[in-house]
Amino acid sequence: MSAPKTSPGNFFEDFHLGQQIRHATPRTVTVGDVALYNGLFGPRFAVQSSDAFAKSIGYPRSPIDDLLVFHVVFGKTVPDVSLNAVANLGYADFRFLKPVYPDTTLNAVSEVIGLRENSNKKTGIVYVRSRGFDETGDAVIDYARWVMVQKRDQAAPAPQEKVPELPKSVDTAQLGSACPKIAAAYDNVLAGSPHRLADYKVGEKIDHVDGITVEEAEHQIATRLYQNTARIHFNLFAESKGRFGRRLIYGGHAISLARALSFNGLTNAFHIAAINGGRHVAPLFAGDTVFAWSEVLASADLPDRKDVGALRVRTIATKDRPCADFPLKSGDDYDPAVILDLDYWVLIPR
Amino acid sequence: MSAPKTSPGNFFEDFHLGQQIRHATPRTVTVGDVALYNGLFGPRFAVQSSDAFAKSIGYPRSPIDDLLVFHVVFGKTVPDVSLNAVANLGYADFRFLKPVYPDTTLNAVSEVIGLRENSNKKTGIVYVRSRGFDETGDAVIDYARWVMVQKRDQAAPAPQEKVPELPKSVDTAQLGSACPKIAAAYDNVLAGSPHRLADYKVGEKIDHVDGITVEEAEHQIATRLYQNTARIHFNLFAESKGRFGRRLIYGGHAISLARALSFNGLTNAFHIAAINGGRHVAPLFAGDTVFAWSEVLASADLPDRKDVGALRVRTIATKDRPCADFPLKSGDDYDPAVILDLDYWVLIPR
Amino acid sequence: MSAPKTSPGNFFEDFHLGQQIRHATPRTVTVGDVALYNGLFGPRFAVQSSDAFAKSIGYPRSPIDDLLVFHVVFGKTVPDVSLNAVANLGYADFRFLKPVYPDTTLNAVSEVIGLRENSNKKTGIVYVRSRGFDETGDAVIDYARWVMVQKRDQAAPAPQEKVPELPKSVDTAQLGSACPKIAAAYDNVLAGSPHRLADYKVGEKIDHVDGITVEEAEHQIATRLYQNTARIHFNLFAESKGRFGRRLIYGGHAISLARALSFNGLTNAFHIAAINGGRHVAPLFAGDTVFAWSEVLASADLPDRKDVGALRVRTIATKDRPCADFPLKSGDDYDPAVILDLDYWVLIPR
Repeated sequence: MSAPKTSPGNFFEDFHLGQQIRHATPRTVTVGDVALYNGLFGPRFAVQSSDAFAKSIGYPRSPIDDLLVFHVVFGKTVPDVSLNAVANLGYADFRFLKPVYPDTTLNAVSEVIGLRENSNKKTGIVYVRSRGFDETGDAVIDYARWVMVQKRDQAAPAPQEKVPELPKSVDTAQLGSACPKIAAAYDNVLAGSPHRLADYKVGEKIDHVDGITVEEAEHQIATRLYQNTARIHFNLFAESKGRFGRRLIYGGHAISLARALSFNGLTNAFHIAAINGGRHVAPLFAGDTVFAWSEVLASADLPDRKDVGALRVRTIATKDRPCADFPLKSGDDYDPAVILDLDYWVLIPR
Repeated sequence: MSAPKTSPGNFFEDFHLGQQIRHATPRTVTVGDVALYNGLFGPRFAVQSSDAFAKSIGYPRSPIDDLLVFHVVFGKTVPDVSLNAVANLGYADFRFLKPVYPDTTLNAVSEVIGLRENSNKKTGIVYVRSRGFDETGDAVIDYARWVMVQKRDQAAPAPQEKVPELPKSVDTAQLGSACPKIAAAYDNVLAGSPHRLADYKVGEKIDHVDGITVEEAEHQIATRLYQNTARIHFNLFAESKGRFGRRLIYGGHAISLARALSFNGLTNAFHIAAINGGRHVAPLFAGDTVFAWSEVLASADLPDRKDVGALRVRTIATKDRPCADFPLKSGDDYDPAVILDLDYWVLIPR
Repeated sequence: MSAPKTSPGNFFEDFHLGQQIRHATPRTVTVGDVALYNGLFGPRFAVQSSDAFAKSIGYPRSPIDDLLVFHVVFGKTVPDVSLNAVANLGYADFRFLKPVYPDTTLNAVSEVIGLRENSNKKTGIVYVRSRGFDETGDAVIDYARWVMVQKRDQAAPAPQEKVPELPKSVDTAQLGSACPKIAAAYDNVLAGSPHRLADYKVGEKIDHVDGITVEEAEHQIATRLYQNTARIHFNLFAESKGRFGRRLIYGGHAISLARALSFNGLTNAFHIAAINGGRHVAPLFAGDTVFAWSEVLASADLPDRKDVGALRVRTIATKDRPCADFPLKSGDDYDPAVILDLDYWVLIPR
């Protein structure tokens, strides 16, 4: 017989510390992808929306939305890293390194930086550092992620355990690289708000007010656009018999919705510079309406940057639950409506 | 406390006569947006569909569909003009001024040209003239619109009443500006029909035959593509408790569907030059099937134009009601199936 | 009265042998269309996905997916050939002749090559040869297709019967024209698989494993993108009273889904060179989950080509039926889950 032609994905015992994985399917991201992303999420940040606005402040043209870059790079890692994942556990030390413009070809490489078998011997946690590169070889995104992956064979020996040390937050010295110097011409009215860095106070909470209902077709189109092949998102026949009885919305979809909603309140926070940590608290399904609110955790200068500063923001997304009263915890646990808890740095003009 | 960061939109008493509003979020429209518009509505007018066809008759390339330009400009006005609107009442003196090509950045400015409080003191009517501009500062679209807007405070004093005089129809001298001189090479077969200006008779009625069913995902993708933020279109959680019990389809969606349907019968009417008036007669919801028919109201020469003439057309769109018998009125009222009554000028080769 | 302005489409008696039909609505295909196609189907073949990958092996940039070219050309033929079709019966001698790149304008011409009235005198079979051309006049696709078309008038006399002779399969000498010479730099890791031509054995069967559920909105967006106007795909109002009680998914949608699924197992088969024959075995509806498997029917050298060879593949698509056991027949008939039976040539690096 011939060798099997389909890949079953990697199981826990297929990973080893230091392993380098070059992921398949480089992807050229075009204005077509940008348009589809806009139709699917409705972001309104002027820098990404208008070439003329972007040029007026120092970009050569509108950069691609940071999260679209992320989703495309993340999508490449799925067939090798998380096809047999039980859960996507977290992100850390997640940095956007270089602006990405239409017609850039993205590809991705991951390194296994940690492994820990779970005590049930059925699963283990795999820590990877993934990097996205453009066609010139420059890194454009760099992040650590950990996922719980099934073992193929429960009897397989446990690997040497290593849990990597990851920073609780990205250092402010690392935040500026994907943002050129912003000209004073930045126009508050065109951008949609007068609120600059100094207008946000640490501890301030912002209800992003609006809600967006998720449709199955939207989610499938988005997730396929990133060439993300995780089966739980596309196969109703299998999932109708599965854990949730229906297709699960890709976690990144919730991040993009929360980011788009956050425009109403964080209007001038035009660039996600880094993600300190993120957790998909509960699953999201088609028909759910997503709301979001944010808290300003910190406000920071950037070294040698007088044009922009950074806000550390925690954004909470909920489903079927408006956020006027900032829902978060219910006793020790999350409020059952919370689906996403994201801690990240945004850049905003001074 | 910090200043509130989210905008509640303007209420009736926030408007004053002569007020100028520069709207937020300039938007570069690309071939990506054009493709998505094509997928969402399926227009088949050859000038907009084919760069080669457009060049053969004198355009530098295919212009962007007139209605996509409209929707993008309209979308910009929503956060300032109609976020607290109860109803979108009408359009008048609506002119397309210049062809718009991919990679143009659109932005929008509105002026308040009329105000009238309603006798119930809960709402008032705001008349605005909105203009869309390209990045060179040229106006590409100019229209008057009036909306019924909620008052924040019923006790607020009524403004000085002014109802602007608006023309019943756009003068034919104003129709040619967004259409270059069309070469005789215009190919009827490639365009899909032999019928030119002279083939249409005043009073002629045309059933556009086909029906298109609207899906929630299509409508949300379209409306977000225009960065239209009207809440009633996206938030099932809120709308399930609201007036209709479900999300309302953006009125402009019905206009675009009617225009796409009208290709079957008005095949060579490749450019909407002006809209004399329009009324969203009844709400449209996902699952409804849209049909349309048209009546030719007038046929006109354009000054100094031997290449094209104008047809004044009234297009009626219905839901779940084929139009072979041209449904319009039921007694003094509209037939309950009618959703749109649009009076506009199209250009068509002689 | 004026002449009718809407086209009822051609009925069986409107066709005659040797008739040439220039189809309407030339269409410029852009990176926007490519992005939407990617979002709708999720293909991952590296040559079409990455300009950088395509350049590394000898293309000037990524060519447009073969099936997107097909769907656009096919869409043009619908208003003239199959608006009154009862069934789309088959394809043969279907060849891709030239790579098509973004910004190409496609148009289509068909010739009637066969006619046969059915014994019931209500319908007849029309055989056409359709060709798609780019704006330079070069043919990019050429195929025979036959459809069962309604008669307008049962009493109309039968035409002279002619059933064209069509090859059972496309000759291997004709397979290379749309594929430039592929450089040795073709990178298996980036492409996603080490399996080249010699790794596939005749008779080998491959389960493509994954399943994709079809949504109504996805299908409508796709089918409108191709300007395919077949009414059964869009009009729920009419179809709810029709044969299936709901909208039918365009047969080409199933072909594109099967092709995208086939990546998992035929990863390096980057180009469809020809289709020997195809049959839509059963209708597909929204909500169904599509699976696919393939059998290698033949492996062939191409004349004067040391870079690539050809695999003749038969791909079977099913609905709501995983393909681990390669479902095909149930007695003399197809397994009731089978929806598509496609016999085609793909090119794959040696």
